[in-house]
Amino acid sequence: MKEIIKNKGSVYCSSNNWDSLNNRIKEINPSNVFIIVDTNTKEYCLPLFIEKKSFNQSFEVLEIPEGEINKNINTCSLLWNELSENVADRNSLIINLGGGVVTDLGGFVASTFKRGLFFINVPTTLLAMVDASVGGKNGVDLGLLKNQIGIINNPEMVLINIDFLKTLPKNQMASGLAEMIKHGLIHSREYWDKVKSFDILKMDELEDLIWESVLIKNDVITKDPFEKNLRKTLNYGHTLGHAIESYSLDQNKFPALLHGEAIAIGMVLTTYISHKQLGFPEQTLSDISHHINKWFNKSLFNKEAINAVIELLKFDKKNYNGKVLFVLLNDIGSHQLNCEVSNLLILEAFEYYKNYK
Amino acid sequence: MKEIIKNKGSVYCSSNNWDSLNNRIKEINPSNVFIIVDTNTKEYCLPLFIEKKSFNQSFEVLEIPEGEINKNINTCSLLWNELSENVADRNSLIINLGGGVVTDLGGFVASTFKRGLFFINVPTTLLAMVDASVGGKNGVDLGLLKNQIGIINNPEMVLINIDFLKTLPKNQMASGLAEMIKHGLIHSREYWDKVKSFDILKMDELEDLIWESVLIKNDVITKDPFEKNLRKTLNYGHTLGHAIESYSLDQNKFPALLHGEAIAIGMVLTTYISHKQLGFPEQTLSDISHHINKWFNKSLFNKEAINAVIELLKFDKKNYNGKVLFVLLNDIGSHQLNCEVSNLLILEAFEYYKNYK
Repeated sequence: MKEIIKNKGSVYCSSNNWDSLNNRIKEINPSNVFIIVDTNTKEYCLPLFIEKKSFNQSFEVLEIPEGEINKNINTCSLLWNELSENVADRNSLIINLGGGVVTDLGGFVASTFKRGLFFINVPTTLLAMVDASVGGKNGVDLGLLKNQIGIINNPEMVLINIDFLKTLPKNQMASGLAEMIKHGLIHSREYWDKVKSFDILKMDELEDLIWESVLIKNDVITKDPFEKNLRKTLNYGHTLGHAIESYSLDQNKFPALLHGEAIAIGMVLTTYISHKQLGFPEQTLSDISHHINKWFNKSLFNKEAINAVIELLKFDKKNYNGKVLFVLLNDIGSHQLNCEVSNLLILEAFEYYKNYK
Repeated sequence: MKEIIKNKGSVYCSSNNWDSLNNRIKEINPSNVFIIVDTNTKEYCLPLFIEKKSFNQSFEVLEIPEGEINKNINTCSLLWNELSENVADRNSLIINLGGGVVTDLGGFVASTFKRGLFFINVPTTLLAMVDASVGGKNGVDLGLLKNQIGIINNPEMVLINIDFLKTLPKNQMASGLAEMIKHGLIHSREYWDKVKSFDILKMDELEDLIWESVLIKNDVITKDPFEKNLRKTLNYGHTLGHAIESYSLDQNKFPALLHGEAIAIGMVLTTYISHKQLGFPEQTLSDISHHINKWFNKSLFNKEAINAVIELLKFDKKNYNGKVLFVLLNDIGSHQLNCEVSNLLILEAFEYYKNYK
């Protein structure tokens, strides 16, 4: 069984890691247990979870509506009230069973109810497994702005079990792949090469790939827990990606994008910018664009859309003194932080994205 | 000048501590500054603050309506949105200028916006100076239940300046006095004797008394930051006091009590319970009841009100496995944690409170 041991926030990966979960819950010995699910994970993931869990405590299932649009403070208020009505105390345990919306929001609800309950994350999407499983970030969106409200607080443990992925739709798998691509680009050509040749049908291979992604992210976070420098590389493609995601959630005429779909576009744009501004190799840029083009449908941005996206950049959390600061790459595995980028170059990047075949 | 130096959360007390504030802000060198006030502190405290502050950064004043009833997540949402509209970034500084509602709520807003901005607390009520100034607790109420949502996070600094108290109404002064009484009861007979003979007109004496209260609280918190044992003593009188406060905020027919007014009642009740259950000396009980009776108006509880208060006890944050746990005293400065108390004895305590003259 694969595991990263830390004092708090241990991550366990493998298909037979249920024992670790059940043991950890026994150690915590909670007064009662709450399982947060969304509409989808209640149907597709909760039955497996209930079959595998072995704790004796009573538990309540708290359901939230699925989708990024519900990752807001109102959903938190509903959950806080449900916890209060069900007399959750400081020895209660919350288990977040779902994708990034459930783990981010559920982690925030748990961290703030009575100033902090125990919580365990069980990510059920590829995206949540490779992205939300380490780092302790949790929180919700503010209106359309992503993750503006939140804190950093580690769960008691994270259980990564690929059995949950068997019912995951293809676009959700691609969404997770985007973050794995990112881990390759910021960290290692070797991993990028593996991700490139990823075959969705080979589940054992996928488990190894997920674990490598988790190790890369854990390595970055351990070296820079407070996001002073290295951890900012995890935002590669996210400055534009988040703005695109916010825009897509706002506009009825524009199709709502999954997080990874928006980040994939952000990475093509940012790699083009890296090429122009820092000399990132043209052939690698083509290679990346080609693979992203293969895995993701192309979105169409008119001039109005691009301007709206640029306008949204000013809410990026890495901004400093009103300046939008990008993470760019000299090459795969070699980054440059705090880069300013002209709007003109951003427009050019959108042009490149549109025309690339 | 009186100061407690800690890495973060240094507390400064004296009428000439403005230099410390201005220096600290220079060190932080924020990109911009937001001052959170309520309707009252905008009128009575902001002019003094603006006169004394010397930083050059632009600042925005964010106003919230005054009163415990507004210490909720909706007020947080309004502030988060205002911060977002004013393009607050991770290098922004929030200054909370007000009583406990402003410092508790403003501290939570600052700690959760973009996963945490700098914040400084400037308490302007006696209660906030002696109670909210150390310990890093922040948060909001959930419906009528006190402080159910929040985290622990220290401000960059706390400035205690008694000039702000000159415009404070008498009932607000008494409300602060309740927490000072508590610090005496849980910690030292000597301090209790000083508080007993407190003369509101001697402002210099008051400053020393406030500072002694801050030191007692700081001592308790330093010894037990995570509220495993000793820190629970700061909840003396609060188990019943919070329930009474929640009840008073809910019932139109019952006068809404200030925090300290409810805690004062809670302390008479709890000291009576301590007398009956642990043999707390009868004469000291009389002495405490006598002084609280002198400083606070008596509230009338009918049977229905008492039952409602008992019902509210189940939401207390110290509860464990469904049990309501009290802090009781053997004598002044000698406590017993995690005591169960029968409803019958609580009813008897209300009877004592009603009849005491």
